[in-house]
Amino acid sequence: MNKRYFWEDFAAGSVREFGATTVTREAILAFAGQFDPQPFHLDEEAAKHSLFKGLCASGWHTAAMTMRMMCDEYLLDAASLGSPGLENIRWKKPVYPGDTLSVRMEILESRPMASRPQVGLVRSSWTVLNQHAEPVMTMEGWAMFSRREPAVGENPG
Amino acid sequence: MNKRYFWEDFAAGSVREFGATTVTREAILAFAGQFDPQPFHLDEEAAKHSLFKGLCASGWHTAAMTMRMMCDEYLLDAASLGSPGLENIRWKKPVYPGDTLSVRMEILESRPMASRPQVGLVRSSWTVLNQHAEPVMTMEGWAMFSRREPAVGENPG
Repeated sequence: MNKRYFWEDFAAGSVREFGATTVTREAILAFAGQFDPQPFHLDEEAAKHSLFKGLCASGWHTAAMTMRMMCDEYLLDAASLGSPGLENIRWKKPVYPGDTLSVRMEILESRPMASRPQVGLVRSSWTVLNQHAEPVMTMEGWAMFSRREPAVGENPG
Repeated sequence: MNKRYFWEDFAAGSVREFGATTVTREAILAFAGQFDPQPFHLDEEAAKHSLFKGLCASGWHTAAMTMRMMCDEYLLDAASLGSPGLENIRWKKPVYPGDTLSVRMEILESRPMASRPQVGLVRSSWTVLNQHAEPVMTMEGWAMFSRREPAVGENPG
C-alpha cells in the first residue's frame, strides 16, 4: 500500500490538532431534515424554548463533521483497516450556526495485534472544540492500521 | 407539553421493534462524499478489494439512519430532553446497497432523576438489524424524558 501513515505513526502519548469546519445554518437544517428532525435542530422558534436556547446541530451531524476532519487530516492517507467501535461519546455543548469546530486527538494506547503480525491497534481519544476552545463532543475508540514493518518472528502478544 | 410518550412509557425490560429503512447506493455515496470519503464508501472497485468486499455505508451513516428511525418511531412524539451520550457503539457488519435496516430497542434501566423531580432517566440498548436479522450496529445510552406525573414529595434518589 502506498500510504503515508502506518501503525507506527500513531505512538501512544502523541497529540494531533487539526481541522476547521464552520457550521452553517443550511448544513444544520439539511442534516436534521434528513436524519434528526427534532424541533431544536430544525425550527429557530422552537429551539429558543428548548434546553439548547437556539437552533443547534444534531449530535450525529457533529460526529459526521468530525469524521470528515479525521479523513482529511490522516485517514485518507493512512493504511487504515477500520474501527470496531467507539466508547464514551459525550455531547457536551450545543453546536450553533457559525461555530467553527476543530479536533484534538490523543493516542492513549498502541499495541501489535496478537493474531495478525501485519496489523497494529491504536486507542485514541478525540475532543471536538468550538471556536471558544470549549469541548462540544468527546469520544474514544480503537482503530486498526497496517504496520509499516510487519513483525517478523515476533512473539504474538 | 402535548406529547404522547413520557418517562413512564419507557419501563425497564420493555422492548420495541421498529423501522424499515432501505439503503440506496445513491444515499451511501451522498453521505460518504460529504462526511466519510474513504474509498470503500465511494468507489465500487476499491471496495471490492477492501475488508468489506463491496461498497458499504459509513458507520456514521448507519448511525444517522438509526436516529431517523428513532425519531419517526417515538422521539418526535416524546417529551424528550436529549441524551448526554452513548456507550459501546459497535459496527458489526457492513451495510450494503439494498439492505433494509430496522431497530430493536430494549429498556435496560429506568429511574427518577434525583435533582429534578419532573425528569426521569432511561438507559436503552439499540440493535440495528439488516434484512437477514443480522446485527449491523449496536449501542447503549442514557436519555432524559419529562415525567407525565412529576414526583410530589418524593425522596430524591
